[in-house]
Amino acid sequence: MPPLLSPRLSSSLKPLLLLSQSSLAPRKFQIPRQLVSVKRRAFSSLASEQSSDNGGRSGGRSGALSPSPVAEEVQRIDVNPPKGTRDFPPEDMRLRNWLFFHFREVSRLFGFEEVDYPVLESEALFIRKAGEEIRDQLYCFEDRGNRRVALRPELTPSLARLVIQKGKSLSFPLKWFAIGQCWRYERMTRGRRREHYQWNMDVLGVPEVTAEAELIASIVAFFKRIGITESDVGFKVSSRKVLQEVLRCYSVPENLFGKVCIIIDKIEKIPIDEIKRELNATGLSEEATEGLLQVLSIKSLTKLEEILGGAGEAIADLKQLFSLAEKFGYSEWIQFDASVVRGLAYYTGIVFEGFDREGKLRAICGGGRYDRLLSTFGGDDVPACGFGFGDAVIVELLKEKGLVPELSLEVENIVCALDHDLQAVAATVATKLREKGQSVDLVLESKPLKWVFKRAARTNAQRLILVGNTEWQRGMVVVKVLSSGEQYEIKLDELE
Amino acid sequence: MPPLLSPRLSSSLKPLLLLSQSSLAPRKFQIPRQLVSVKRRAFSSLASEQSSDNGGRSGGRSGALSPSPVAEEVQRIDVNPPKGTRDFPPEDMRLRNWLFFHFREVSRLFGFEEVDYPVLESEALFIRKAGEEIRDQLYCFEDRGNRRVALRPELTPSLARLVIQKGKSLSFPLKWFAIGQCWRYERMTRGRRREHYQWNMDVLGVPEVTAEAELIASIVAFFKRIGITESDVGFKVSSRKVLQEVLRCYSVPENLFGKVCIIIDKIEKIPIDEIKRELNATGLSEEATEGLLQVLSIKSLTKLEEILGGAGEAIADLKQLFSLAEKFGYSEWIQFDASVVRGLAYYTGIVFEGFDREGKLRAICGGGRYDRLLSTFGGDDVPACGFGFGDAVIVELLKEKGLVPELSLEVENIVCALDHDLQAVAATVATKLREKGQSVDLVLESKPLKWVFKRAARTNAQRLILVGNTEWQRGMVVVKVLSSGEQYEIKLDELE
Repeated sequence: MPPLLSPRLSSSLKPLLLLSQSSLAPRKFQIPRQLVSVKRRAFSSLASEQSSDNGGRSGGRSGALSPSPVAEEVQRIDVNPPKGTRDFPPEDMRLRNWLFFHFREVSRLFGFEEVDYPVLESEALFIRKAGEEIRDQLYCFEDRGNRRVALRPELTPSLARLVIQKGKSLSFPLKWFAIGQCWRYERMTRGRRREHYQWNMDVLGVPEVTAEAELIASIVAFFKRIGITESDVGFKVSSRKVLQEVLRCYSVPENLFGKVCIIIDKIEKIPIDEIKRELNATGLSEEATEGLLQVLSIKSLTKLEEILGGAGEAIADLKQLFSLAEKFGYSEWIQFDASVVRGLAYYTGIVFEGFDREGKLRAICGGGRYDRLLSTFGGDDVPACGFGFGDAVIVELLKEKGLVPELSLEVENIVCALDHDLQAVAATVATKLREKGQSVDLVLESKPLKWVFKRAARTNAQRLILVGNTEWQRGMVVVKVLSSGEQYEIKLDELE
Repeated sequence: MPPLLSPRLSSSLKPLLLLSQSSLAPRKFQIPRQLVSVKRRAFSSLASEQSSDNGGRSGGRSGALSPSPVAEEVQRIDVNPPKGTRDFPPEDMRLRNWLFFHFREVSRLFGFEEVDYPVLESEALFIRKAGEEIRDQLYCFEDRGNRRVALRPELTPSLARLVIQKGKSLSFPLKWFAIGQCWRYERMTRGRRREHYQWNMDVLGVPEVTAEAELIASIVAFFKRIGITESDVGFKVSSRKVLQEVLRCYSVPENLFGKVCIIIDKIEKIPIDEIKRELNATGLSEEATEGLLQVLSIKSLTKLEEILGGAGEAIADLKQLFSLAEKFGYSEWIQFDASVVRGLAYYTGIVFEGFDREGKLRAICGGGRYDRLLSTFGGDDVPACGFGFGDAVIVELLKEKGLVPELSLEVENIVCALDHDLQAVAATVATKLREKGQSVDLVLESKPLKWVFKRAARTNAQRLILVGNTEWQRGMVVVKVLSSGEQYEIKLDELE
């Protein structure tokens, strides 16, 4: 009993009684017959019928009071989700759940633990000065407390933040995965959206290339599960140490490394002269620029070794990765390609990206080693690598290959009362079945059997359980197996 | 081969060769010995050791180039998530996943389909003029395209938007559920956060109270699954039609209904005199205010019937609901309480909220009928009801009751090479096991056995698979069952 109300109740019962005998009595209400009849006509359960039914607008049970309870003028809203974002109606949600299920299953098989971070972070977490595309597309705002915040464009900086925060309480190596929505405020060209979900797997605390090899193995396992083969996709692999070693040769200052990578990453998107101009503007000599571009065109590890020699880390890392790929069983999936650098400033070693062999789509996924990220936030560095795998390009690929699964709603039982008075009994039947772990679509209104069969077909129900008067008097219900048409009576208690 | 690079390659091979013979040769690199040795010391895999290791900062494999590749001054960032938001490290994520699993399982058992909407919506979708708390706490911004947008504070308006958009393509009744993050920019008092996840279930297209009864049944099923009983929690149930009927008696204009409900909802939070003042300011006479407050204090349906009479919709709906509750088997969970009105302007009929019987916590969940929401957006109305169930208060309750489950990481196997040269073989073993559906934590570095056992204990691994030289020469691996200590050799192919 609400403490504020109870004293009032006891001290003033009289006006209440007065009320009850006069104006509050319902028989004084003047409910227009017409409105009541609209109510009784009941809302049509099929949209197509409903829309041709002018009573629909004032239908439902609240016929007595026609205006909106919100008491506002009607505003015709834009029924689309904001530009660049998606709704997930059931059919799209099933596909998303199917993808996420496989993301999670693969992560589980590889012994990774799931984590998540806020979709809204401090803008400072994402501000890097290397000219990345991601920085220019930050979905940032000022909140009501005048803080600069941003919808996360990626998950890795949040991971780094959390690892620094947790500090000594963590036991390395960490093997963490996350599936999170990421946002980019892009011009809406090329059908790109402003949000996507991204599966990330990261290994922290392992300096060896075994970590990268494990990450690629997990993506391969994912592809295999969803029916994608090595003839559909591949991984281009390189190491940023290749670039480092080349830049060192030309005595390019090390602090230009990040910027150079970002420029190089655009190499397939903008004219080569523009790339050169940007590299020169950053401070690279013409000779360095030419040398760099030459090395980037190499597609053979042997060739790279001829040029860089065999003693550097770049070659050693790449050789080890290719050797591990063999033992993991995915040699046919990966190839060396010096032009792969990835578009994030913080990578330091191996970088890789998944691509479709027909060359129709953007990168399917990408990742690499980022041993220096934590110190840019003031933390102690931890050797780390990871990848991001979006939910957009992979669906495009599945469509291209005709591999999008047919996923439909599947309920086990549809339970229906044959008589309005038995509605409550049907509720008992539904409860019994659900307690036994059976899913039940309970028909919540009196509906003709024809309607019920249509509904059962739409929900792919396996059984129809009918609660009829004659049977129920004997404690029985009728079960109809919808695939075979078989029909029998059974005691409610024996229904499994 | 990137098209922009290949022409360059063929037309200027000379500088490349020149490069390879001179400055690019790695033997010219001057890698300081000291840095290399720091690298070789390898990152310590245990955080406690790492933190006492000053080499950690320059550890990892990228020892050759010490500054950050991002090439920025170090900014010590705030390592906490933004005020009012949460990170989900593995232990918290396991609890979240456990909750969400039960949300999903119950929804599945009740035949509901999952949907989702963008977390960022047009602000207009949430702007109602009834003075709701939710409106004042909107997490709204202007995006880069000068559009007013908001992080959703609730899911129902998005549901309404999607239903209007889908129009005739939908087959009613819809039984939809969603689990989505919602945002409120609140003053950070009382430990309330600015985001929470909310489980929603909605039935659209059913005017009868069976729909509300089904919704409450699903919440009861959820409580039972997680160990909460009717002695821990209950549902207070009323109908907004009670208020409607009372207001009608006093000839209060119908367009004040929403505002009155919002004021009434604050009845336990602010002094009763303030409630009265607000009701008067809205336009209610003193008589109407007193009458209203009297009715709101009623806790018995019989008493209410005495006052309102038996013919109105309010009484009929409530009686039907209590009758259905009996058949669903949750009579002991629900009670009539006229003071429940809920804080959202759009409810029109039955309203309910889940509460803890000890009275320590805020409402655990709440919902009701909202038959008029779609028309406020310019759509055709559809009878509808639903509830929201947050992830915050329920966890508080589980803690109170000592019911928070112990959830730990559980991998089936930990696979470890006894020799660095066998690392790649261990990868093969891990792949075999994973292909058989077994989860594997693969040890990615050379580690002493003591470390491996510690790790196995932390990950609750069931088996330790050791890849040693002697056994591997015979194609065998050593399996150690960690619970029993039992140890045996087995051929890799026979490992299940």
